[in-house]
Amino acid sequence: MRSKHQISSHFLKVIFLLLILGCSASPRKSMRSRRPCKEMVFYFHDIIYNGKNFKNATSAIVGAPAWGNHTILANNNHFGNVVVFDDPITLDNNLHSPPVGRAQGLYIYDKKEIFTSWLGFSFVFNSTAHKGSINFAGADPLMNKTRDISVIGGTGDFFMTRGVATLMTDAFEGEVYFRLRVDIKFYECW
Amino acid sequence: MRSKHQISSHFLKVIFLLLILGCSASPRKSMRSRRPCKEMVFYFHDIIYNGKNFKNATSAIVGAPAWGNHTILANNNHFGNVVVFDDPITLDNNLHSPPVGRAQGLYIYDKKEIFTSWLGFSFVFNSTAHKGSINFAGADPLMNKTRDISVIGGTGDFFMTRGVATLMTDAFEGEVYFRLRVDIKFYECW
Amino acid sequence: MRSKHQISSHFLKVIFLLLILGCSASPRKSMRSRRPCKEMVFYFHDIIYNGKNFKNATSAIVGAPAWGNHTILANNNHFGNVVVFDDPITLDNNLHSPPVGRAQGLYIYDKKEIFTSWLGFSFVFNSTAHKGSINFAGADPLMNKTRDISVIGGTGDFFMTRGVATLMTDAFEGEVYFRLRVDIKFYECW
Repeated sequence: MRSKHQISSHFLKVIFLLLILGCSASPRKSMRSRRPCKEMVFYFHDIIYNGKNFKNATSAIVGAPAWGNHTILANNNHFGNVVVFDDPITLDNNLHSPPVGRAQGLYIYDKKEIFTSWLGFSFVFNSTAHKGSINFAGADPLMNKTRDISVIGGTGDFFMTRGVATLMTDAFEGEVYFRLRVDIKFYECW
Repeated sequence: MRSKHQISSHFLKVIFLLLILGCSASPRKSMRSRRPCKEMVFYFHDIIYNGKNFKNATSAIVGAPAWGNHTILANNNHFGNVVVFDDPITLDNNLHSPPVGRAQGLYIYDKKEIFTSWLGFSFVFNSTAHKGSINFAGADPLMNKTRDISVIGGTGDFFMTRGVATLMTDAFEGEVYFRLRVDIKFYECW
Repeated sequence: MRSKHQISSHFLKVIFLLLILGCSASPRKSMRSRRPCKEMVFYFHDIIYNGKNFKNATSAIVGAPAWGNHTILANNNHFGNVVVFDDPITLDNNLHSPPVGRAQGLYIYDKKEIFTSWLGFSFVFNSTAHKGSINFAGADPLMNKTRDISVIGGTGDFFMTRGVATLMTDAFEGEVYFRLRVDIKFYECW
């Protein structure tokens, strides 16, 4: 009997140790996997209203600094412009491909000296392929080749997800059209 | 001695396996519970400033497209309007019930063709019942009966929470007053 | 043999129980540590454009209620003003210390009766000390000595972090300059 008890208490200690190391630590530090649980690539297309293109426009200037207006992006790297958008999402880089969802929200230009922006928006899906939304927020220093923003939540097929989305400017035509490639890596799936 | 060692190594293997399956997997895929750890229902009430109702107004148009202004919501489904709000939160659907907190932040109308919006806001509580804040972001396609947005964080009593909030338009009177019912389901509690 | 099996099944029950208590519960309720996995303190400095200080200004009014404009903060506790900012971040409370990053995003004033605001912004770092971004959202009732907002995500060195940031107004000079101290406590590190 004595030796069994010894094993028993020894095992319990090992188990406790493993639990403490393996589990309790996980909400705190670094045991989490940096391998995505899901990956997706999309493109979205932004055509800004310029006073003449209402029919095709997918976004509009809605805020401007004292030196700006709501028809033309402001001087000083558009600092202070706020733009609301409802942009088509496509699976490839073709504006005329059938949209699979809409990117909706706002971006702001937030620096005098260079072009840089900040984004708060959602991908909204309502097709047989995907139903639900992915919510994003983050800084977009758009002169960099790639920029990372946060996936801060999701609903429907993307219930409670979190992750990182890498933005790349895939096209930029004058100041009316741009296209972003978005590589989404989810690290929390439910 | 030998048989004890065999048990010992066998147990350790089982324990490791269980730890790997039960714990390491949990930050990645689907072991997480879709049963809420906390649920709450609130209503909030929005009275938009229209040039004549300053005393009662709880929100104001602060951004507009080139074809709009800051006193009347714009044509084309209010596309481009940005509204800042400080709305009372109540426990039932009565505007005159004692407020238990404030819903504060902004919403934008972000589509030309139909009414749809995007929200970034907080519920702010400072009573004996609740102290702290719940932060929300997401798309609100407000012609749908129910819409899901994300609970992206919280403070105080709602420390580090995440979840999903389901919005329902509970009343809509002309373009001055609306009331939203918000069913909050928290899936991460701390 | 029989007694070994008894130990075996007894141990397995204990292990399962521990796993259920220690691990499965953790994504749901309260087993998570409220001890931060990382802490940081920063200051950021906001100089709002007032029509005369373009060179030094780090922020600009870009939205206003019907009774306001984009050069002077509006009456009624600035209710409805939207401000876009690109503020230097420093390690101490000296505006002239070398910036270690930029705080970029927007804040709004969202109450008629007192000063209170709502923030959506990022800390953007690109130095040898830190590379990456921290994304924040939340209500800032700025008449309170301390206010908590959420860290809703991060990238680079701050990959997938979540936490709570405590804001303190460290200086407030007229309506042109303010300085915030930000104590960031991360509770999810990867």
